[in-house]
Amino acid sequence: MIYSLEAGGKRIRPLLVFATIDAFGMDPKKGLSAAAAIEMIHTYSLIHDDLPSMDNDDLRRGKPTNHKVFGDAVATLAGDALLTYSFEVLGNIPNDSITAETRLKLIVEMAKAAGTEGMVGGQVADMEGEGKSLTLQELEYIHIHKTGKLLGFSVLAGALIAGANQSQIESLSAFAHHLGLAFQIQDDILDVVGNEQEIGKRVGSDTTNSKSTYPKLLSLDGAKAALREQTHRAKANLAKTGLNTTLLMEITDLVASRNH
Amino acid sequence: MIYSLEAGGKRIRPLLVFATIDAFGMDPKKGLSAAAAIEMIHTYSLIHDDLPSMDNDDLRRGKPTNHKVFGDAVATLAGDALLTYSFEVLGNIPNDSITAETRLKLIVEMAKAAGTEGMVGGQVADMEGEGKSLTLQELEYIHIHKTGKLLGFSVLAGALIAGANQSQIESLSAFAHHLGLAFQIQDDILDVVGNEQEIGKRVGSDTTNSKSTYPKLLSLDGAKAALREQTHRAKANLAKTGLNTTLLMEITDLVASRNH
Repeated sequence: MIYSLEAGGKRIRPLLVFATIDAFGMDPKKGLSAAAAIEMIHTYSLIHDDLPSMDNDDLRRGKPTNHKVFGDAVATLAGDALLTYSFEVLGNIPNDSITAETRLKLIVEMAKAAGTEGMVGGQVADMEGEGKSLTLQELEYIHIHKTGKLLGFSVLAGALIAGANQSQIESLSAFAHHLGLAFQIQDDILDVVGNEQEIGKRVGSDTTNSKSTYPKLLSLDGAKAALREQTHRAKANLAKTGLNTTLLMEITDLVASRNH
Repeated sequence: MIYSLEAGGKRIRPLLVFATIDAFGMDPKKGLSAAAAIEMIHTYSLIHDDLPSMDNDDLRRGKPTNHKVFGDAVATLAGDALLTYSFEVLGNIPNDSITAETRLKLIVEMAKAAGTEGMVGGQVADMEGEGKSLTLQELEYIHIHKTGKLLGFSVLAGALIAGANQSQIESLSAFAHHLGLAFQIQDDILDVVGNEQEIGKRVGSDTTNSKSTYPKLLSLDGAKAALREQTHRAKANLAKTGLNTTLLMEITDLVASRNH
């Protein structure tokens, strides 16, 4: 569990929790437990995705994947335990910090974002789509679920912790939706033009696995245009919140311009 | 997910939730969500335990194991999704039925029972003990964690939902501890003397996998004596509660005398 948690990674999800709380002028530290829980969910999903029965990847974040070091059985259990512990961490947020009702809302929304309506559902759709020629709509369905829902929950968690009102939650959710698509389009672009050493995993694996990607469906230039469009929409929704979203704007630029 | 949930099984854990609530003279239906959540956790653990990288079992509850029907990848994800959904179900118990604080307590305790301090921890210890000659103490450590903690949580969940006081919780926890050991001793005995068709999985697999068992450490007669001792202690703790524990007593007899 610790090996994979400490293997690094971009920590985009925790950053989104903190930056969202910061937008409300509150102490980002209020989001520490939620940020840790979300990063555990993300890490468990990577451990299981990398298993031989799934993507069979040897390298992740520049290091041997969990099952390469500890074997398939322990990797499966480490993932299970991280997923389980993430809910314990959310349930244990001190009462004086966040009300019991808000903690329950965080737990239910995290489960939705991570389960069949979210990440796991997207992963299944992704596997079923392998080797097939997908439409842009089908590709977006996969990404919205596989990556977008947990990114969206990171923003929602920050908003719930900060006590956002309904209209702020709607604008922030729309922001997260477009940010998630931008994130995935850039991921696909990096698999074509990226540097293996900077990314820390194999590049070109989408082509090898005959996966549908944005560059394949839209051409590389078309994918870059779609990335600009999603980035623009993400920022437009941020502007609607009336909050001090400097950090969220910066994260959006980071996501769109990252090289790993 | 549905294939494995509906494959049958003894439903001992849900029965424990209901019987515990019944002991307080309350409507067992109050425990439906908790019972469902616990059975989902149990089912996910069986799906993952049966995977080729773990116990590599082809038959479970008299039917082909999940990965035999759906493949290793989908079986892994079905387990992940059941685990995730179990927390969503607990978090969604209506507010008029159980307070938010109690729901949070249920979530945290279920995570502890299922995670590294509980079921997953026991599974890792079990795997590490394979092929080794274990002491009785080491064997009990494995069983208390791998099976006992979730059985214990089933009783605790019923007690929390029914509003048990601290002394009742202590007696009921001690009851569950001994019931869990009785359950496992009978499991080991059945692997020696049981009927494959009634059990619905391979018998003799402990010997094949050179696992330490109670009959091996204590002889078959010694294991039967230990079973009687644990059953006796379980019932003695029930008697201490001052509750109407008729159903819990019956479940204890069922666990000790079951042939599958």
